[in-house]
Amino acid sequence: MNMPPTVADTMLDVLRDWGIDRIFSCPGSTEAAVLDALTGRTDPRLVLTTHESVAVSMADGLARATGNPTVAYLHANVGLTNGLSHLYAAQLAHSPVVVLNGVKHRSVQSHDGFTTARRMAELVQQYVKSAWQSQTAQLVPEEVNRAIRASVTEPVGPVWLALAQDLLEQRWTGTAPDVSAFRFECRGAPAPDAVRAAADLIRAAERPLLVAGNEVARSDAVDGVVRLSERCGIPVLHEELRSFERPGFPTDHPHFRGRYHPQHPLVRAADVIVFLGVRLFNEFEPPTSPQIPPAARVVHAHPDPRRLGELHGVDVALTGDQELVVSALLTALPDTPTRQVPPRPGDEPRPTGGPRTGRRLRTTDVIEVLTDVLRDHVLVADATTAGDELQRRAVQRGPEDFFTTGSGSLGWGMGAALGVQLGLPHRRVAAIVGDGVFQFGIPALWSAARDRIPVTYVVLNNEGYAAVGRALRRLDGRAVRVDDYPGVDIAGPRIAEVSTAMGVPGSRVETLTELRERLVASRDVEHPVLVEVMTDPAEFRGHDL
Amino acid sequence: MNMPPTVADTMLDVLRDWGIDRIFSCPGSTEAAVLDALTGRTDPRLVLTTHESVAVSMADGLARATGNPTVAYLHANVGLTNGLSHLYAAQLAHSPVVVLNGVKHRSVQSHDGFTTARRMAELVQQYVKSAWQSQTAQLVPEEVNRAIRASVTEPVGPVWLALAQDLLEQRWTGTAPDVSAFRFECRGAPAPDAVRAAADLIRAAERPLLVAGNEVARSDAVDGVVRLSERCGIPVLHEELRSFERPGFPTDHPHFRGRYHPQHPLVRAADVIVFLGVRLFNEFEPPTSPQIPPAARVVHAHPDPRRLGELHGVDVALTGDQELVVSALLTALPDTPTRQVPPRPGDEPRPTGGPRTGRRLRTTDVIEVLTDVLRDHVLVADATTAGDELQRRAVQRGPEDFFTTGSGSLGWGMGAALGVQLGLPHRRVAAIVGDGVFQFGIPALWSAARDRIPVTYVVLNNEGYAAVGRALRRLDGRAVRVDDYPGVDIAGPRIAEVSTAMGVPGSRVETLTELRERLVASRDVEHPVLVEVMTDPAEFRGHDL
Repeated sequence: MNMPPTVADTMLDVLRDWGIDRIFSCPGSTEAAVLDALTGRTDPRLVLTTHESVAVSMADGLARATGNPTVAYLHANVGLTNGLSHLYAAQLAHSPVVVLNGVKHRSVQSHDGFTTARRMAELVQQYVKSAWQSQTAQLVPEEVNRAIRASVTEPVGPVWLALAQDLLEQRWTGTAPDVSAFRFECRGAPAPDAVRAAADLIRAAERPLLVAGNEVARSDAVDGVVRLSERCGIPVLHEELRSFERPGFPTDHPHFRGRYHPQHPLVRAADVIVFLGVRLFNEFEPPTSPQIPPAARVVHAHPDPRRLGELHGVDVALTGDQELVVSALLTALPDTPTRQVPPRPGDEPRPTGGPRTGRRLRTTDVIEVLTDVLRDHVLVADATTAGDELQRRAVQRGPEDFFTTGSGSLGWGMGAALGVQLGLPHRRVAAIVGDGVFQFGIPALWSAARDRIPVTYVVLNNEGYAAVGRALRRLDGRAVRVDDYPGVDIAGPRIAEVSTAMGVPGSRVETLTELRERLVASRDVEHPVLVEVMTDPAEFRGHDL
Repeated sequence: MNMPPTVADTMLDVLRDWGIDRIFSCPGSTEAAVLDALTGRTDPRLVLTTHESVAVSMADGLARATGNPTVAYLHANVGLTNGLSHLYAAQLAHSPVVVLNGVKHRSVQSHDGFTTARRMAELVQQYVKSAWQSQTAQLVPEEVNRAIRASVTEPVGPVWLALAQDLLEQRWTGTAPDVSAFRFECRGAPAPDAVRAAADLIRAAERPLLVAGNEVARSDAVDGVVRLSERCGIPVLHEELRSFERPGFPTDHPHFRGRYHPQHPLVRAADVIVFLGVRLFNEFEPPTSPQIPPAARVVHAHPDPRRLGELHGVDVALTGDQELVVSALLTALPDTPTRQVPPRPGDEPRPTGGPRTGRRLRTTDVIEVLTDVLRDHVLVADATTAGDELQRRAVQRGPEDFFTTGSGSLGWGMGAALGVQLGLPHRRVAAIVGDGVFQFGIPALWSAARDRIPVTYVVLNNEGYAAVGRALRRLDGRAVRVDDYPGVDIAGPRIAEVSTAMGVPGSRVETLTELRERLVASRDVEHPVLVEVMTDPAEFRGHDL
């Protein structure tokens, strides 16, 4: 072939030079030039999906697992809107997802033609660091390079670039950008005086507490936090439930003490709390008591300076990469005498659940089996009400052992688990999802089957939106009085059969023994499987009253 | 119960007073106050869905079928974004869908908490006539009333109103708005001088042509157009393929001559073209020749004045309700001598399709059977490549006989068909969708099964994104040279089995005889069914080269 490359070809070369080897997409005719350029190409290659939400969540999962930028290529205005809710998840996790968005020929856009939006950027700009539509073919490779650069620059996060059909179809005659000059690391270190102030607080503290958050996990600063905890004798908590995305500290470490909560005994007792890579906070409802004990001195470190002093004042703020923050604290605290870490209290009280409906399983019992049999798996959790207990019980030895989302975007885990599995090929990934979540992510099963991505899906089927039921219980109004909970019951689908028909062999289990057997069996197969676990639909009735 | 009602109760009273008897929703905990108020209530009652896209498309289908406002109640920022792509479909069809959007307590919003967006309105404002978030409980009933009023005011279309959790939970002590004073009709009639000018053009024309569009159907102006055509002896076309949503003229009328296209012989020959309730145009790609013959005089009538002179200059513009426009023209043309309508030419050439793969069915043959057996059904079409032929062949006697979307938003038909069926309980509805569309709308099957909505789903399974294949053929690049079409093959799911497992009995057919049998059988059941028809995946290879 002697034809010069197209702009689409050159755009793909830019991705290749960044080491991006996959494009996740559910394409339409608008993307023909890109698909044509992808024909026979493996660097990058197309990972086909059958819904844009899957393209985004797969790209997000891969980015979280590897730390590298990934590409979701969306179709027109409708594909963008279909991808938005999971893009919100990527944003919260500081996940470098580059959304390239095929849009119609510029003339069709001008005429408000088929699948166009007059103000595309407005749809997405809240979820990205940069939103731009290329205006001229000659700048497309440069702008793609710039979008990727922007995605991995701290604070890391999604970026959006729209590429019109007619631009990509043009022949490319210019010089593509030298990507190597843009693939630098540029981590920020905290200011020395802030580090000294933080170290002074920690050194003088009598009951200090570390809270190791998502950004510790993302920055591979977990080992440093372990050293800091051990050297200084400080107990460590994970980030609070609603903002938790990844473990910043090994749950099997003797200094681990659970999850941040204002009522946690160590929080209530602390005189200095060091929040490392934590968000303060992702509120679910207005707090009825202080989120941070007023008497505690507060050190807060985060790579995104906007997260510092966002809602809560601090004594010391540390901006920068969490690994560099922790290194600096270790350097500043060379010989701190080791305190005695307070002994581990009894386990947090285990929720007892509500009355059992006949022989249906209790969620807590199911999670006990899951976290036992799947203890060496990477867990991707997207189970609205069960997620709390799951995250509490799962052994998380390292930052790649557990992924979830604080977005509330149902269905995320169905696709994200596939991306995580692609990014961690030597691990086995299990997605733990609810039955509501399942219905939001059914097309992910198609991608799992097509690419034989060996994720084990576990669907906790309580046949309902238990979160809605719990909210009605909390409200304690008419629904409780007449014992009728509208919007809760979504019984019906035979989920294992849906899965099998989608190409992922599914089985339904109703006992813990069956569950254990199925999970053990899933460890030996090289393809995706799904296990549907029937749990008790009435459990929410036992909550909050 | 002696407690005063909540703001949520009063909000539901406003809906009731507007005659809105259903709320389509996939709720979350944020909507607890509304669900509590809906407990035991049937005016309106909750229609539960398991994905927001289904809530919106069901509300859209019901609004299209009845002309009355409908309500989709969405959950937080994630639910809104999940509903956007089908809201675009509602917008294009001038469908009065009122989106009420549950959002978190105002304090949580201020703190950028769980499932909040700082600029919610930006996400939606391109798709609605009005976007507002209530600021105070006392104004919620008034603002809901105003949103509904806005939705049905011409140009009719979706409206968005966000309602915070804490506002709805408050007790209501005020006086609810008197809805009856807002439920007026207010159609606009065209200006008399414009009517006279249009009538003069029509009277003087030698080869006039009527094009009866979506807005003729929506305004129940079809009978008037039939009289106008018969009185003046003018042939009639439907709206052009990409903007077509509903039939503005009976296809079995002797004056019907197919669909508008610049190359249609009657279009090329016309000296006066009267576009009634038509959009000019929803371009799919830049036109290579004039869309309207330069020699023709043009009359364009539309209820939305922004659609007049939008891209094409006209000789006479008529703003107003299409029924009033047609009445005015009939009044102004009392005795126009009847012209001879040119004879119907031979049928448009039927696409021959590509080579057949073994024994797989050709789409054209399948559509022949569908449009025969389902000739008394309401058809809801959402089949990207087959939609063209389907719309061309289907007998459409009235404006409720055929619904489709010009949005390109895949999956719309899966939910819209349910809404249409609810709105037309004395008719039987069939949804004709592609296999790609099916995967976008699987949760709609849950709602179909739950409420036993007796839609017949027909899935044309060519195991691919044929539109993508055709686009690659048109591009005629590397994919064609190496005969490899990335992004096309989505084979795998056993769609009938997925459907059965979701609660809608499905069957797969591979012959026209089986298809006919299944369709005939579906007419006698009172619940939803699905028929998966295996069509030829290779057909796109025969196109456009």
